[in-house]
Amino acid sequence: MQAAELIERKRNGEEIPAGELREFVAAYVRDEVPDYQAAAFLMAVWFRGLSPAETYALTHAMVASGERLELATRLGRRVVDKHSTGGVGDKVTIAVGPVVAACGVPFGKMSGRGLGHTGGTLDKLESIPGFRVELTTDELVDQTREIGIAVAGQTADLVPADKKLYGLRDVTATIDQVSLIAASIMSKKIAAGASAVVLDVKVGEGAFMQTVDDARELAQAMRALGEQAGMDVVCELTDMGQPLGRAVGNALEVREAWETVSGGGPEDFRELVVGAAAQLLALSDLGVDEAEGRRRAEAALEDGSALAVYERWVRAQGGDPDPARLPTAPVVRSVAAPASGHVHELRARRVAIAAMELGAGREVAGQPIDHAVGVVCLCKRGRQVEAGEPLAEIHARDEAGADEAEATLLAAYEIGPGAPEPRPLVLEVIH
Amino acid sequence: MQAAELIERKRNGEEIPAGELREFVAAYVRDEVPDYQAAAFLMAVWFRGLSPAETYALTHAMVASGERLELATRLGRRVVDKHSTGGVGDKVTIAVGPVVAACGVPFGKMSGRGLGHTGGTLDKLESIPGFRVELTTDELVDQTREIGIAVAGQTADLVPADKKLYGLRDVTATIDQVSLIAASIMSKKIAAGASAVVLDVKVGEGAFMQTVDDARELAQAMRALGEQAGMDVVCELTDMGQPLGRAVGNALEVREAWETVSGGGPEDFRELVVGAAAQLLALSDLGVDEAEGRRRAEAALEDGSALAVYERWVRAQGGDPDPARLPTAPVVRSVAAPASGHVHELRARRVAIAAMELGAGREVAGQPIDHAVGVVCLCKRGRQVEAGEPLAEIHARDEAGADEAEATLLAAYEIGPGAPEPRPLVLEVIH
Repeated sequence: MQAAELIERKRNGEEIPAGELREFVAAYVRDEVPDYQAAAFLMAVWFRGLSPAETYALTHAMVASGERLELATRLGRRVVDKHSTGGVGDKVTIAVGPVVAACGVPFGKMSGRGLGHTGGTLDKLESIPGFRVELTTDELVDQTREIGIAVAGQTADLVPADKKLYGLRDVTATIDQVSLIAASIMSKKIAAGASAVVLDVKVGEGAFMQTVDDARELAQAMRALGEQAGMDVVCELTDMGQPLGRAVGNALEVREAWETVSGGGPEDFRELVVGAAAQLLALSDLGVDEAEGRRRAEAALEDGSALAVYERWVRAQGGDPDPARLPTAPVVRSVAAPASGHVHELRARRVAIAAMELGAGREVAGQPIDHAVGVVCLCKRGRQVEAGEPLAEIHARDEAGADEAEATLLAAYEIGPGAPEPRPLVLEVIH
Repeated sequence: MQAAELIERKRNGEEIPAGELREFVAAYVRDEVPDYQAAAFLMAVWFRGLSPAETYALTHAMVASGERLELATRLGRRVVDKHSTGGVGDKVTIAVGPVVAACGVPFGKMSGRGLGHTGGTLDKLESIPGFRVELTTDELVDQTREIGIAVAGQTADLVPADKKLYGLRDVTATIDQVSLIAASIMSKKIAAGASAVVLDVKVGEGAFMQTVDDARELAQAMRALGEQAGMDVVCELTDMGQPLGRAVGNALEVREAWETVSGGGPEDFRELVVGAAAQLLALSDLGVDEAEGRRRAEAALEDGSALAVYERWVRAQGGDPDPARLPTAPVVRSVAAPASGHVHELRARRVAIAAMELGAGREVAGQPIDHAVGVVCLCKRGRQVEAGEPLAEIHARDEAGADEAEATLLAAYEIGPGAPEPRPLVLEVIH
């Protein structure tokens, strides 16, 4: 294993043979290749990219670094999964899981924590009093079998190479590279062993991928990796110019997910949940197409079955599903529209920064977060507002925190004359 | 110190302000920035380069990481130094030092060890029985004052940042970057404190710099750094397509240097020594121009004064100057010309590999070397040879080693009909 020489070839733009790349990753996981050589390699990859063959080899080396959950095999059924590349206000998993499970399709999933301006499903679920995200592999499989749904944290023995490489990428400015992102996401999906996955690739200033072209490149890389592993993959490119739904902040987002599985919720969010559920059902062993999937998903939201599954799920993981038991912030402030007109922009990244300032997110891994705080965007893009009308709500620890967040939030809004051109939420679906 | 964020800006092609770059290097030397962040930074620099201002800031941060020798200040005179970027058969320091000192100009210098296919002056000097390369700073200064010349290893307290960064670059494929090479060389020259330096930038397949354009870029970067530090710098770009002189291998090269200071030696090597000495004398406080410098250098070679200084110097550092005392190899094999014709090429890198195979060099730092072995290239580029005539001599530990080196050496020679176009040794001088 001549690590320096492999780095040099990658640096010079050569393609590294699969066997060598596998050996490099395996040696890194065994601490035989030091962090500094891995860091130099990752930066060379940032500049040169990885070929499809290299991306595949990297992904499979990462999968091979740990255990495989083999969820579908162990349940003896097709299991579906969804993944989002991370956005602002993205609580889709918490709503779509119960819908899919209510339609009779097993939904067993490992999720992550939030870092930077995007939140993580585990943090959101932990705002539910008593909710336990650390399940053993057996608990995850058993619960998925028994009540149709389980969402847990990544276990340490699943794709340890990703944990190690991601940690290194985070401190060496090598996160934002399409092949590395695709390999990181898909190695975990392949190791978990779902049969099909719907990937929601967020596009816009609130997301990793700033342009549709970049998002499409990532989607295609992930689809190729899934297919090579025998997994059905559908990718949606969805707009992350503004937050998804209205709530940004952990308990506030859980409440919005609960409203949605109860048959309510913001229209854009409900639409994304129904669309994702329809795709997941069409990929399942129910033998239905997407239109029928959509009909069944809508029915589950209307007839109370999605809510019933949500409640069973939360209880199974030790939580109290009553939304009245979610933590609340001591200060709730209404933010008034500074002018009359239409909302032309509601910049997702600034809304996320306001929520971070309130304490809803973390800047470095391991930082504690405040589950109660956050922002509710009452008026979103395209909405006509009158000066003085409530634009948004700030849920804060104290008045000083609310002041800071209010200034940031007002800067996220752009209000002007005339209605803006509508922008679709789902930009593209790649089957 | 947000190291990850600084790496990201460099990666994106931004210029890093001098203060931040200084802080980054200082934090790295204090182990507050880990190797993996420095490695990612170096790889980003490999792709993006450094601006002149960044190169200057890096160089001065490196100088500031340790002590300064202030050689000229301590001697109260202008002190001259020379440096070669590393070639095959480059024993110029060992011959030019005595010539310059014999002309009355102090020559105090720190040298390095060989790594890869280029040899290091310290390794060559250590082939002299008893020669001690580890002098304290005071010993170096005192010896230079007393006998006019001292050549020693880098002390640990001089530019520790370079030692640390060079070690990291060596294992992360980030050696061959012009700004990093310039900063590494010039930080040591500035910290040593000579008044003027002649830089010999080797060009060709046996050198770091493969083209005249690359070599000129490096020369100009080093000149700019020297001038900013108040140092006079002359750069020579010299051909490293074939080895310099005839001998490649430690004791063999010392013998050739001795022959040269004794008034003999191969013509190309003698010419380079006289040219460099002339430039050093012109940069000294003798008040002579280069033509007069050349006259005095030639006189020192002819009248025995250079040899006398060589002998005093070697004895001062504990060595025995008698060339008969140099170690010799048990097997000396003559390599016959396989065909008649002219030598069209004598590829420096292959000759170096033959010498490495014999044990004259090291592939990784710290490896022991055999001082006695090596190659003597009797016929060089342009020379007419008859089939069967001796082309070269191999000095080996055993017959098997000689066999291997002979095959490599024969592949270094290209013999064909007609005389090749002559190629000058000195390609360009940048004053």
